[in-house]
Amino acid sequence: MTAPLRLGIAGLGTVGIGLVKIVQNNPDLLETRSGRKITISAVSARSKDKDRGADLSGYAWEDNAVDLAQRDDVDVYVELMGGHEGPAKNSIEAAISAGKDVVTANKALLAIHGQALAESAEEAGKLIRFEAAVAGGIPVVKALTEGLSGNVINRVMGVMNGSCNYILTRMQDAGLTYQEVFDEANALGYLEADPQLDVGGIDAGHKLALLASIAYGTQVDFDAVELEGIGSVTIEDINQAADMGYRIKLLGVAQLTGRGLEQRMSPCLVPASSPLGQLQGGTNMVVLEGDAVEQVVLRGPGAGEGPTASAVIADIMDLARGVRISTFGQPAKYLVKARAARAAVSAPYYLRIQLVDKPGSLAKIAAILGDAGISIDRMRQYGHDDHSAPVLIVTHKTTRTAVDEAIQQFSTTGLIEGAPVAIRIETV
Amino acid sequence: MTAPLRLGIAGLGTVGIGLVKIVQNNPDLLETRSGRKITISAVSARSKDKDRGADLSGYAWEDNAVDLAQRDDVDVYVELMGGHEGPAKNSIEAAISAGKDVVTANKALLAIHGQALAESAEEAGKLIRFEAAVAGGIPVVKALTEGLSGNVINRVMGVMNGSCNYILTRMQDAGLTYQEVFDEANALGYLEADPQLDVGGIDAGHKLALLASIAYGTQVDFDAVELEGIGSVTIEDINQAADMGYRIKLLGVAQLTGRGLEQRMSPCLVPASSPLGQLQGGTNMVVLEGDAVEQVVLRGPGAGEGPTASAVIADIMDLARGVRISTFGQPAKYLVKARAARAAVSAPYYLRIQLVDKPGSLAKIAAILGDAGISIDRMRQYGHDDHSAPVLIVTHKTTRTAVDEAIQQFSTTGLIEGAPVAIRIETV
Ligand SMILES: NC(=O)c1ccc[n+]([C@@H]2O[C@H](COP(=O)([O-])OP(=O)(O)OC[C@H]3O[C@@H](n4cnc5c(N)ncnc54)[C@H](OP(=O)(O)O)[C@@H]3O)[C@@H](O)[C@H]2O)c1
Ligand SMILES: NC(=O)c1ccc[n+]([C@@H]2O[C@H](COP(=O)([O-])OP(=O)(O)OC[C@H]3O[C@@H](n4cnc5c(N)ncnc54)[C@H](OP(=O)(O)O)[C@@H]3O)[C@@H](O)[C@H]2O)c1
Repeated sequence: MTAPLRLGIAGLGTVGIGLVKIVQNNPDLLETRSGRKITISAVSARSKDKDRGADLSGYAWEDNAVDLAQRDDVDVYVELMGGHEGPAKNSIEAAISAGKDVVTANKALLAIHGQALAESAEEAGKLIRFEAAVAGGIPVVKALTEGLSGNVINRVMGVMNGSCNYILTRMQDAGLTYQEVFDEANALGYLEADPQLDVGGIDAGHKLALLASIAYGTQVDFDAVELEGIGSVTIEDINQAADMGYRIKLLGVAQLTGRGLEQRMSPCLVPASSPLGQLQGGTNMVVLEGDAVEQVVLRGPGAGEGPTASAVIADIMDLARGVRISTFGQPAKYLVKARAARAAVSAPYYLRIQLVDKPGSLAKIAAILGDAGISIDRMRQYGHDDHSAPVLIVTHKTTRTAVDEAIQQFSTTGLIEGAPVAIRIETV
Repeated sequence: MTAPLRLGIAGLGTVGIGLVKIVQNNPDLLETRSGRKITISAVSARSKDKDRGADLSGYAWEDNAVDLAQRDDVDVYVELMGGHEGPAKNSIEAAISAGKDVVTANKALLAIHGQALAESAEEAGKLIRFEAAVAGGIPVVKALTEGLSGNVINRVMGVMNGSCNYILTRMQDAGLTYQEVFDEANALGYLEADPQLDVGGIDAGHKLALLASIAYGTQVDFDAVELEGIGSVTIEDINQAADMGYRIKLLGVAQLTGRGLEQRMSPCLVPASSPLGQLQGGTNMVVLEGDAVEQVVLRGPGAGEGPTASAVIADIMDLARGVRISTFGQPAKYLVKARAARAAVSAPYYLRIQLVDKPGSLAKIAAILGDAGISIDRMRQYGHDDHSAPVLIVTHKTTRTAVDEAIQQFSTTGLIEGAPVAIRIETV
């Protein structure tokens, strides 16, 4: 029998305690499947005395995660504290120096320092694994890194922040405004302490940057993610989009184009009948497209104690089973710096403008679109008793630049009230 | 640099040629990701001279797969001929004896001889891998074996035969009978040479038996799969089910119960709004449920050159990367023989009967259900000008035994025309 695999767990919150429970509840299953006992040597959190709903008396306690990471009786250091600097980063560095493999759920840290950390781990012959950092319980890092390892990846898409998807679907179902649902979600504790991490698309952007690195063999580059949160999505647009057969999702898309790597995290329209369009509530979904496999869709819980711990233990089990695949699917030193492309991939757009009711005003709008090289797929003008009316336009494929140009021109006509809305339609 | 990983490929049909193309088209990608060159040493098929749309001139030819499997210049023997006896089985055994790892897409073979083959491979320190055998391009073997390795699996479900799902959705969309769509699909070449493998649920049953083995640590036992094909599904039931918010799918379900392992492959009703209910055409879907992860759903192409070859190359890449996880997720010698349970898990049922129009006949039916301990959730009787009318019943959870008992009693009343229909409703 091989020696046990001994864990040191820093962070005993939602995910950490979830992990402790799995190790405590199913020891035989873990041993039969991996061929090794999985044990916990030591744990760490901020407060030693908190009742955490799990019996931790059998484990050594460390006040300091850096000390935990270096203990002789720890084979794998499991970082579940969070934060992209400070203890999380320091302790992972300490673990690597001390010759430990590392498992973490920390997308913020890896999206920013993943390249450097992976390089130093690999120099030391150690691994950093992060299944839980992307889309919680969905084994998407594995599916992409290993399951699709023979594919040229064409596109990676995902709804990877459950709170945003919850807010958007709840707006639609209950007919509430963004602010109303935001307040509700915040009160229910569905949002991060800094809600901007969720609704600003930052958290989901971290995840997208990690997947893009694996998909395209590029150095993770969160700064290159074009970020747009859901704060400006209105119930009007949700309803109008629904009328035209679409749903609005905070969708991440990563694509390698002739001009470089495009990474976007932004509200998009997707067909209501597509798997992405049908995704309700807090569930996550990732769509992987490859030259051989065509399209694989993965759906599951993106957060929560059990699902996230399920992903953490899967990484640990892989280590126990002797799996030694590099953090980003290939040695970090071979990952290339991608040129960041913005708005390189053209797409249809949904436009909503509030048009002043004057003879010829619609013709003027159509002419501006034509001049910008944008052709119209569908247009709807709604009845009104006011002096202006909403006009909805779905364009054929065009560029963001052309759309911005047209919008700029609209404002010079004096025929538009308020700011025009333009939302990309992602073909799925 | 590690030495190349050299393949011997037996079978150059849809999947075999798909694999050759991947190896030829993306050599650098495969090498960067796995750290080794993936090369082809030799190939085999029935006819040497067939034009296969790929240049095979660089590879040695073997007329006999057994010879191919034993070649000194082959590290991994890739069996893509099919068939559960004869050359496939013999050559895999020969490969193992000769100390090769094996990759295959052959669900028929593994569903029947998987236990013996895995045992002999593992005794020899070799592996058999079969990602492509289950749900084509979907990396579901990996998701279950590795991604969910820390979970007690509660249920595995899947729509894993694209042809059957195509037939059922086409019946609904076009309002055609089973026989009409079957003939159409057969003419289009969508069905196996022996169509019963598809429509009889055998092919999908093979896949279910393989997943059940991984999920529950049991010896693969295809004979214990309760098989019911789609041949008796009528357009009436499809339409009535749709009216009540359901779809009919050929659904595989594997569950470990107090009474043993239940494996069913049969037409089931699922909610139209669920991911399974929304699955159209030839696409496959697998639903994995575990104690920690809750539910993960995977969707993708279940067959075809590219998708199936994508799964084959993933297994090969894992071998190149040094991944040595046992065929069924744990050493085959530890897999237990499961007791086969039939109809152990209760469920709601959909019943359709053609009821003779006599006073008190509906009351009589209701009384029989009550006597069998079956309570009624919904009942619909349709208008009619005939002497009989269809009655639809959705029951609360009950056992198959109770349903069969009630149906048996119905026939004694003289109030029923034709055979009653009873289809399980799977809660998803
Ligand atoms: N929650 C999810 O569903 C989810 C999903 C995917 C990924 N993640 C990631 O998983 C990580 C953990 O998330 P979580 O939800 O479990 O967080 P959490 O519930 O807030 O728990 C954080 C834990 O870290 C401990 N901690 C914080 N600073 C520490 C320090 N300096 N030294 C030692 N311990 C410290 C805390 O100690 P005290 O308990 O004593 O305060 C707490 O136990 C984060 O990176 C998060 O992004 C979470
Ligand atoms: N097709 C799919 O989408 C798919 C999906 C999942 C799994 N699979 C599985 O993959 C395997 C191959 O399927 P396929 O669709 O590629 O089959 P296929 O197109 O019929 O090809 C079979 C190949 O095997 C060769 N062959 C047959 N008997 C042989 C023998 N005795 N010795 C040497 N070669 C022999 C054939 O040679 P000739 O060409 O000379 O006749 C042919 O090249 C089967 O186990 C199948 O169940 C297929």
